[in-house]
Amino acid sequence: MPQQKTVNGVKVTELFNTIEAIKQNPEIAKFKFRATNMWVKGTYNRGVVDGFYGALEEDNSRKPMVFKLDEPPVLLGKNQGANPVEYLLVALSGCLTTSLIAHAAARGIDVKKVESRYEGDLDLRGFLGISEDVQVGYQNIRVYFKIDADISEEQKEELIRMAQKYSPVFNTITKSAPVSVHLDK
Amino acid sequence: MPQQKTVNGVKVTELFNTIEAIKQNPEIAKFKFRATNMWVKGTYNRGVVDGFYGALEEDNSRKPMVFKLDEPPVLLGKNQGANPVEYLLVALSGCLTTSLIAHAAARGIDVKKVESRYEGDLDLRGFLGISEDVQVGYQNIRVYFKIDADISEEQKEELIRMAQKYSPVFNTITKSAPVSVHLDK
Repeated sequence: MPQQKTVNGVKVTELFNTIEAIKQNPEIAKFKFRATNMWVKGTYNRGVVDGFYGALEEDNSRKPMVFKLDEPPVLLGKNQGANPVEYLLVALSGCLTTSLIAHAAARGIDVKKVESRYEGDLDLRGFLGISEDVQVGYQNIRVYFKIDADISEEQKEELIRMAQKYSPVFNTITKSAPVSVHLDK
Repeated sequence: MPQQKTVNGVKVTELFNTIEAIKQNPEIAKFKFRATNMWVKGTYNRGVVDGFYGALEEDNSRKPMVFKLDEPPVLLGKNQGANPVEYLLVALSGCLTTSLIAHAAARGIDVKKVESRYEGDLDLRGFLGISEDVQVGYQNIRVYFKIDADISEEQKEELIRMAQKYSPVFNTITKSAPVSVHLDK
């Protein structure tokens, strides 16, 4: 067995082996991620994540993970969970962080600590159908990273650029993705 | 006190009062939602949601809600949480559902049950930097709704159109939003 190299808790040897395998067979890289949702009452509903398809097979090894979504009272809910636009920020936060860490690991950069904060502007006149001129989605999202590592400010800025370049959630939001919605009969 | 009308668990009278108040003062509709993230190890990190700004004031009444994000072993993680692109589907699921329910309530349409499922295609050659021709974000997301209500198929299709038209997460993903990423010094 060759020695396993690990940086930032990422198994770098395995990462490079995966990349080599995908270069031989790009089908390995084609993943399908899934969720289901069940409405409960009012603004309260529950999302569930379990299986996915990837690396040429179905993976049903995980137990279902349940997420409660609700609105605060000012938006007619009962605070039974974070709201959908907040979940979007959580998704973005996890993706930028993992992207930053993985690409730092691939370059052999040890990172001690990474914290980030997110703020998105939403004008509810869009959702409420009050004005057609107001966009329905987020108008702007701002992200602030704090990185503790023995590298220069320039290298930290470079890590942040890599995080953005390679993050699937960041690129889905900033470049858009088609979503088709169907009625099951 | 005028009688409160509630449809699908949504306080419709309050909803219409909110819309009237916003028409008088659009500043009420300007919300700022937030999240923070702390990297733990490897592909594992935690997102936190608590306060937000909206209806002209800061709301810090909620307890912090913590979300664990990780990857499955095939993606070098340890299954300590759903992954970021799965959180994105959860966000989308909650938003389309709430949008559908709220707009049905506003039109006085009673809904008995709403279920939906989500599947997104992701080619990891983008994330891994193997090919510049492969998009990094989701290539496609498909959504399937099942609606139980005493209405026609056409009316169900109309509910689905409304859900898409007014959902902030759906519109953020399909129309894109600018995300600026900064380094805290």
